[in-house]
Amino acid sequence: MRHLIDPMDLSLEEIDQLLQVGDDIIKNPQKYSEVCKGKKLATLFYEPSTRTRLSFESAMMELGGNVIGFSSADSSSAAKGESVADTIRVIAGYADIAAMRHPKEGAPMVAAMNSPIPVINAGDGGHQHPTQTLTDLMTIHQLKGRVDNMTVGLCGDLKFGRTVHSLITALSRYEGIRFVLISPDELKIPDYVKTEILDKKQIPYTEVHTLEEAMPELDILYMTRVQRERFASEEEYLRLKDCYILTPEKLASAKSDMYILHPLPRVNEISVAVDKDPRAAYFKQVFFGKIIRMALIMKLLGVTPAPFNKELPAPQRDESEPVIGEHHCNNPRCITTIEQELPQAFRLVDKESNTYRCIYCEAQL
Amino acid sequence: MRHLIDPMDLSLEEIDQLLQVGDDIIKNPQKYSEVCKGKKLATLFYEPSTRTRLSFESAMMELGGNVIGFSSADSSSAAKGESVADTIRVIAGYADIAAMRHPKEGAPMVAAMNSPIPVINAGDGGHQHPTQTLTDLMTIHQLKGRVDNMTVGLCGDLKFGRTVHSLITALSRYEGIRFVLISPDELKIPDYVKTEILDKKQIPYTEVHTLEEAMPELDILYMTRVQRERFASEEEYLRLKDCYILTPEKLASAKSDMYILHPLPRVNEISVAVDKDPRAAYFKQVFFGKIIRMALIMKLLGVTPAPFNKELPAPQRDESEPVIGEHHCNNPRCITTIEQELPQAFRLVDKESNTYRCIYCEAQL
Amino acid sequence: MRHLIDPMDLSLEEIDQLLQVGDDIIKNPQKYSEVCKGKKLATLFYEPSTRTRLSFESAMMELGGNVIGFSSADSSSAAKGESVADTIRVIAGYADIAAMRHPKEGAPMVAAMNSPIPVINAGDGGHQHPTQTLTDLMTIHQLKGRVDNMTVGLCGDLKFGRTVHSLITALSRYEGIRFVLISPDELKIPDYVKTEILDKKQIPYTEVHTLEEAMPELDILYMTRVQRERFASEEEYLRLKDCYILTPEKLASAKSDMYILHPLPRVNEISVAVDKDPRAAYFKQVFFGKIIRMALIMKLLGVTPAPFNKELPAPQRDESEPVIGEHHCNNPRCITTIEQELPQAFRLVDKESNTYRCIYCEAQL
Repeated sequence: MRHLIDPMDLSLEEIDQLLQVGDDIIKNPQKYSEVCKGKKLATLFYEPSTRTRLSFESAMMELGGNVIGFSSADSSSAAKGESVADTIRVIAGYADIAAMRHPKEGAPMVAAMNSPIPVINAGDGGHQHPTQTLTDLMTIHQLKGRVDNMTVGLCGDLKFGRTVHSLITALSRYEGIRFVLISPDELKIPDYVKTEILDKKQIPYTEVHTLEEAMPELDILYMTRVQRERFASEEEYLRLKDCYILTPEKLASAKSDMYILHPLPRVNEISVAVDKDPRAAYFKQVFFGKIIRMALIMKLLGVTPAPFNKELPAPQRDESEPVIGEHHCNNPRCITTIEQELPQAFRLVDKESNTYRCIYCEAQL
Repeated sequence: MRHLIDPMDLSLEEIDQLLQVGDDIIKNPQKYSEVCKGKKLATLFYEPSTRTRLSFESAMMELGGNVIGFSSADSSSAAKGESVADTIRVIAGYADIAAMRHPKEGAPMVAAMNSPIPVINAGDGGHQHPTQTLTDLMTIHQLKGRVDNMTVGLCGDLKFGRTVHSLITALSRYEGIRFVLISPDELKIPDYVKTEILDKKQIPYTEVHTLEEAMPELDILYMTRVQRERFASEEEYLRLKDCYILTPEKLASAKSDMYILHPLPRVNEISVAVDKDPRAAYFKQVFFGKIIRMALIMKLLGVTPAPFNKELPAPQRDESEPVIGEHHCNNPRCITTIEQELPQAFRLVDKESNTYRCIYCEAQL
Repeated sequence: MRHLIDPMDLSLEEIDQLLQVGDDIIKNPQKYSEVCKGKKLATLFYEPSTRTRLSFESAMMELGGNVIGFSSADSSSAAKGESVADTIRVIAGYADIAAMRHPKEGAPMVAAMNSPIPVINAGDGGHQHPTQTLTDLMTIHQLKGRVDNMTVGLCGDLKFGRTVHSLITALSRYEGIRFVLISPDELKIPDYVKTEILDKKQIPYTEVHTLEEAMPELDILYMTRVQRERFASEEEYLRLKDCYILTPEKLASAKSDMYILHPLPRVNEISVAVDKDPRAAYFKQVFFGKIIRMALIMKLLGVTPAPFNKELPAPQRDESEPVIGEHHCNNPRCITTIEQELPQAFRLVDKESNTYRCIYCEAQL
């Protein structure tokens, strides 16, 4: 039973195959319109996320399948105190595959550990959101015809932005990637991303303060929101915010085949005036997100049609055995804080520094 | 790309065609059961309206299509501050047509202005609700075999009742219509309806205070709710309310082929004892609402089967160019109060009186 | 028009037929996959119950049908004060069958009294939940190959547990049933269950205080939640609760072909360590719940395929005529407290004791 909990749960070969299936769906949608007939996807959304939920639901419907589920904890049995482990086993009596969104980090992993059906992590707190990363890769692949050998600008909140960290990790597996990190000092990329990913893989990157500095060299510009409350003071925010708002003026120096991505929803970090620019790709990205979710659902259900159904090697993980019950996770957003009879478990992730991380939420011990 | 935002977005010929399609659906439902196979309707309900939402959803399903969406703003991304213009472009990545209910007046129009897929207004605040009007026309057409040449009584809150104003406007386009307006003085039809519609088109009407006065001459009686809080005082309400409650006794003097309509939900303005009367048509009206929505969805998707797929002239509107950014809409329920980067825009609707109206919510400048 | 409001609305022959249909669905799911094509189930959930709602929805989908509905009163028109009687007549314009969950006792019965389509009670307050009882019977039937001649242990809150009372009533119609009632004194089975059901039908039963006493003789162990707030004091709760928590240790003395059922959700009354035991059947029970709902939906829609479509005698009820409008129901959870123009009605259920019960909620006068 395969699940998708972390973007790294798929090998590079598997992701390439998903991208190829995506291409084929766009070319031949009819070929896929009944592939999941008689099958059901459960969308288990413990917090609202309309975009992600509707993306999964439309993906399943375009494969000929059906959808059941809930869109917020209010309208679910979560209020009655049922554990995630129990819920997924109940759902397995109704559905063939599940997509789970949960405010607690690690919840979809706990579901997967107990599930007789494939589980897809549709976002767990500030932790992982692997189908967003697949969406980003599919979008780059479709627009540029490749995922390797390009300069990728990441702009905005690079400190707390989960999608940015995942995208860096995912792109770091490809050849010839260069990053330009565009943010105020307050929101710079965390050190562990630099040391554990960029430096370890010798990925070149530069850090700049303004969009203008970065613009001319970019092949992809990935925009994210800059939230007022992240700044030291209101003055600081007002002084800096305009640097991170994309306008037609700032776009003037960009390449003609550069593309702008954004995980959405946007607030005001991309001016509406940019929408008409042919390089604005954030609404196309929504469409590609549906397509790659179709490919993913087929893969996990084992119904991808030939020639894309070749069994490929899953990622090999050289992981140490977890240490059970000795330590306690201090992350207040960790699923261990609420799940009944769930053992605390940590894994040594770096021998040199003797770093242990919670196996569920990956918080450091 | 056609949308339905205002009841007047359809020409008389187009409405007649929809009514004919409706007749054919009732006679030959099987013929339509797969017409929308593989297509998806998005129901974007920023406020709950179960009846309208389920009418759209069942309509789409009876055409063989699928449905995605949300039923209240709580369980949607609206809380994250996404604009209506962005939301519809996201939804267009998932669905083929959208029905939008929104508390802000003009929101569905803003969606339509930005949408690559057809948008249906499923009610925007107190402004428009065009599929209710189509439902009313379909019901009259089915029950009476015609929409022209009849006396229509409108009872209850004629001042604030949006459905009543729309129905008057819609019926005013047909020959031989007479209205009897039945309401307390507090809730009389607004002057602009009299001058801009009834008088302009020379539609005969009378105003009365009681159901009894009107009953014998009516071919259709359209009931609406009379809300306690609309009256000057509790005494006034208690003194008057019984005049506007339909009972079997008041029905005694009605024609045998008169029919009672109501947009529902009712509270107590029609006694439950009336339900058994063969002239009570308000639950049939629900069914006809589904049927006409089926016809509308097919029309907007361009999938109506022959012989009802003849291209007909859309309404010609002799509208002046809007004045952009000079004035500010004072209607607190207008979509301009919340939508990001949406220009204020007014249009001269009456040269004589120099009347300008907001193009979104139609509030007067 | 048949409905399922009370578990006793089905004769023993009809239940046996449903169980046989259930067996056949499990063996030949393909045979049933399009039986309800073009039909719609409305799930009218005035309060959330994810498990029950998704069970109905997946059941309908596996029959090839569609689903519309709402999952909580917030997102429905209930807030606008529409009566249940009106709602069901509106829904009948959209759907072919309805499942209603309502916090007010008797609400689904009022719906059924006014409905042109079959209504299934999906739980009305603390009153009835007939498809849970059918689920329990289907589970016992599948696991044991019979529903008669066995010793059934019922553990936990036997005083307030609606599912327990219904299961006792349902099993009392079969031969050779023995009950072992396992509960603290505070939560013993109510006297009326003993006198009106067990004694009247001469069903043998014993009452014990601990799981250990009962375990060796049981064929079925039905666990329920023991809620802290039911006890006289916190000390009492802490002293007693462990007696009613099922652990692998307590299971040691059980028969090897004994099965554990639970209506779910559980909190902590069954240790997670028991889940791996092959006798743990509570997640299988969820699956059987879907299966029996499929059989029920087909029966009420009249689409069950041969040879299971034989018309069987419905239960004969020797009921007295209700007394209308003379008395007033004192149950604050009765539907009569909110439904507009609904007459109070009581029925003499026991001549000897001159006992009258409300026809809607069955509260005693």
